[in-house]
Amino acid sequence: MTFKPDDTHNPELKSWVETANDPATEFPIQNLPLCAFEVTHGEGEQLHSHAHPGVAIGDQILDVGLLVESGWMEREAPEDLVEALQQPYWFGLAHSPRLVHDLRVVLQKFLADGAGGGQQIRRLRDKALRPQSRTRLVEPLPIFNYTDFYASIHHATTVGAMFRPDNPLLPNYKHVPIGYHGRASSIVVSGSPITRPKGQQSPPETDPGSGPVFGPCKLLDYELEVGMYIARGNELGEPVPIGLAHDYMLGLCLVNDWSARDIQKWEYQPLGPFLAKNFATTISPYIVTMDALAPFRRGAMERPAGDPRPLPYLWDDQDQKHGGFEITLEVYLQSAQMAEKQMAPVRLSRGSFRDMYWTFGQMLTHHASNGCNLRAGDLLASGTVSGKESDSRGCLLELTWDGAGADGKPRPRRPIQLPTGETRTFLADGDTVVFKGICEREGYRTIGFGECRGTITGSRV
Amino acid sequence: MTFKPDDTHNPELKSWVETANDPATEFPIQNLPLCAFEVTHGEGEQLHSHAHPGVAIGDQILDVGLLVESGWMEREAPEDLVEALQQPYWFGLAHSPRLVHDLRVVLQKFLADGAGGGQQIRRLRDKALRPQSRTRLVEPLPIFNYTDFYASIHHATTVGAMFRPDNPLLPNYKHVPIGYHGRASSIVVSGSPITRPKGQQSPPETDPGSGPVFGPCKLLDYELEVGMYIARGNELGEPVPIGLAHDYMLGLCLVNDWSARDIQKWEYQPLGPFLAKNFATTISPYIVTMDALAPFRRGAMERPAGDPRPLPYLWDDQDQKHGGFEITLEVYLQSAQMAEKQMAPVRLSRGSFRDMYWTFGQMLTHHASNGCNLRAGDLLASGTVSGKESDSRGCLLELTWDGAGADGKPRPRRPIQLPTGETRTFLADGDTVVFKGICEREGYRTIGFGECRGTITGSRV
Repeated sequence: MTFKPDDTHNPELKSWVETANDPATEFPIQNLPLCAFEVTHGEGEQLHSHAHPGVAIGDQILDVGLLVESGWMEREAPEDLVEALQQPYWFGLAHSPRLVHDLRVVLQKFLADGAGGGQQIRRLRDKALRPQSRTRLVEPLPIFNYTDFYASIHHATTVGAMFRPDNPLLPNYKHVPIGYHGRASSIVVSGSPITRPKGQQSPPETDPGSGPVFGPCKLLDYELEVGMYIARGNELGEPVPIGLAHDYMLGLCLVNDWSARDIQKWEYQPLGPFLAKNFATTISPYIVTMDALAPFRRGAMERPAGDPRPLPYLWDDQDQKHGGFEITLEVYLQSAQMAEKQMAPVRLSRGSFRDMYWTFGQMLTHHASNGCNLRAGDLLASGTVSGKESDSRGCLLELTWDGAGADGKPRPRRPIQLPTGETRTFLADGDTVVFKGICEREGYRTIGFGECRGTITGSRV
Repeated sequence: MTFKPDDTHNPELKSWVETANDPATEFPIQNLPLCAFEVTHGEGEQLHSHAHPGVAIGDQILDVGLLVESGWMEREAPEDLVEALQQPYWFGLAHSPRLVHDLRVVLQKFLADGAGGGQQIRRLRDKALRPQSRTRLVEPLPIFNYTDFYASIHHATTVGAMFRPDNPLLPNYKHVPIGYHGRASSIVVSGSPITRPKGQQSPPETDPGSGPVFGPCKLLDYELEVGMYIARGNELGEPVPIGLAHDYMLGLCLVNDWSARDIQKWEYQPLGPFLAKNFATTISPYIVTMDALAPFRRGAMERPAGDPRPLPYLWDDQDQKHGGFEITLEVYLQSAQMAEKQMAPVRLSRGSFRDMYWTFGQMLTHHASNGCNLRAGDLLASGTVSGKESDSRGCLLELTWDGAGADGKPRPRRPIQLPTGETRTFLADGDTVVFKGICEREGYRTIGFGECRGTITGSRV
């Protein structure tokens, strides 16, 4: 894996797709994040649909599948890349990180301003573009296994303080990249509605002997996370040394790990979260490739003095030097009332992915350290991304927390004020939550992740 | 779902496959458990393999795929069953439990003693059978999602007592069928070797300040469980009422949820088991269908007087009356030394699946109660099956536990004596663990699950 920017990141590069040159776009020609979209053929009983690979460019999706079918790719791309693109979704890229680089190079050639070509190429250009606004994006890779980590020490400390005021951070935290298996089947793409889950909740505190109740979740929350797609897997029983971990990564996306806090509190002992999480997880539809992210790499978070150095299997100089990412992450909320009044979503928080205690390299290597086999398309999520500052907390559980009073008991939560006069401590039906992720660096084009969006609908009767 | 035995369970029914009539076989004509086996075609670069569906009969596998290809199925079976069998693996059966019944009926017709037919049928019989001992069985359905429960109150109480002597059973246990997501990718079929995992373990008790260590697991254990395959899924957001839960089940298998106790102890707070479990999970290769299990259904475990009645969404009279299964479960161990000396495996424990606090109906309905979408082929495992008696405990963690002394501290573990003079508190390299599951009932043929077997190999260097 090379961690360094190269020609594909040249900020001077422009595209004939005009919107890709707009300074405000998240998808300039330097980004080209991978996606998949639904194409339907035939009609009536013969109607069938399948997923085509594409990349985002400006406000358009470029149909990469069509570039293959039309023969253009065969003329312009290295043979192994053409072969890789014959496979469904993006599985063919799993064999080598170089293929992703080659893909970006060849697509930049197709998309670059001034790229020559006669009438035939012009026709292909027209045919291969489709507006994002009218394209139904699906999972860019079928996710067979989903693992959620807990890699923000700020999140772990704040949440720990709520449950264990004297001992917020457990003794394993600074040694183990804590993770657990999430539910793959309920991962949905940005824009899918989120049904408020029902579930068991603790007996009311006023009457602890009365037994639990079952009903719609009252403490529905989002969790702002970054997800990493596995490019290629390892065999069962074969760990992945941390020095090689970055070769196994395809790219990143945004993840909303929707959480039902009341269900979680009652169910999670002793085996961890289950129904509090598995009713839905939203992903942004694009894979921002490791190749595109090269300029935005940075060192891992510096461990505070006195923190233990992780065990050798989790420690690698290159990973420490380049394993972090400068991604600004924002959370927006728009209530149903705000939407009706056409009021813009309000920003709830703003943080950075650089503040993670563990790198994706460490998470991946830890995951495979016992021989567990990762597979192409698996998703590893970071856990809630929270920073030190109170306005950088990545979930409502933290954002509306007001600590404990002098009596040691938690103070009432501090509600968030919305411009309509409404308030929120947790999510209400009709609320839309939107995550954004942006990478900026002096001397480089800004690239983005696209939205990770979901609207809460009421529980079914 | 009908819970009652019918003609397919008639004990008088015999097969022309002689070994199926042996009173000791687990696979008489009344069982016909589903499996899949690898078939290879072509050679050299053209070599490719795919999975054929089959059922076990005596010491043979009947190639059901061949019965379809040969046209026999089309002549003899209902049209919708023939269509269902065109789909890969057993996914076609997902649409209706009736299809499974129809399949057993039509296969019994093919296999029954005295079934007529000329030379053509005799040739088909020859061609369609292959010895189990020379057949490579694979996963009977690709398992996309794997969930592990904790449904034995005896297991939960004994293990709870080790970690929380004063409060062995947590307050949620009698209300919530506790579960968590396991790892689907590392599920392997009976007979696959199990590599001893490496992992982080707690700082030594003699020097708690010294930090954790990384190395081969020292406390490797098995967990005896029963798994249930989902026949058909539910849509995201749509719970499954408990009155319908049994219609969603395809059948049962045996599961070994291999566990690294030292890794588990250090990692599991606060999000549950992860690397302690996901290095491997072994399944027996057959799905014993709900249809075949009808005579062995029984009422759910009677809850002790004073136990709370579960919430209404988990309570159904039919599930209480027929949701349990009479399955005798046994664990055998054979050390490398024993194998070398050709000594038979020794039985470590013997218990019954009737002793579960929660039924599969309750586990399935709970799982989907928040709208989580189950999918055909998903596996739900019961959690360790332990009974009240000390010789019915389903893992070494419990079997070799000797409680606490007068000082409140745990007594040293009581090792198991092997006939070679060796002793075990946990598993050693070279140990083979075999699970068996048998259903017996007066007036019916005994049916079995086949073996769930794994041998421990040392950690890789």
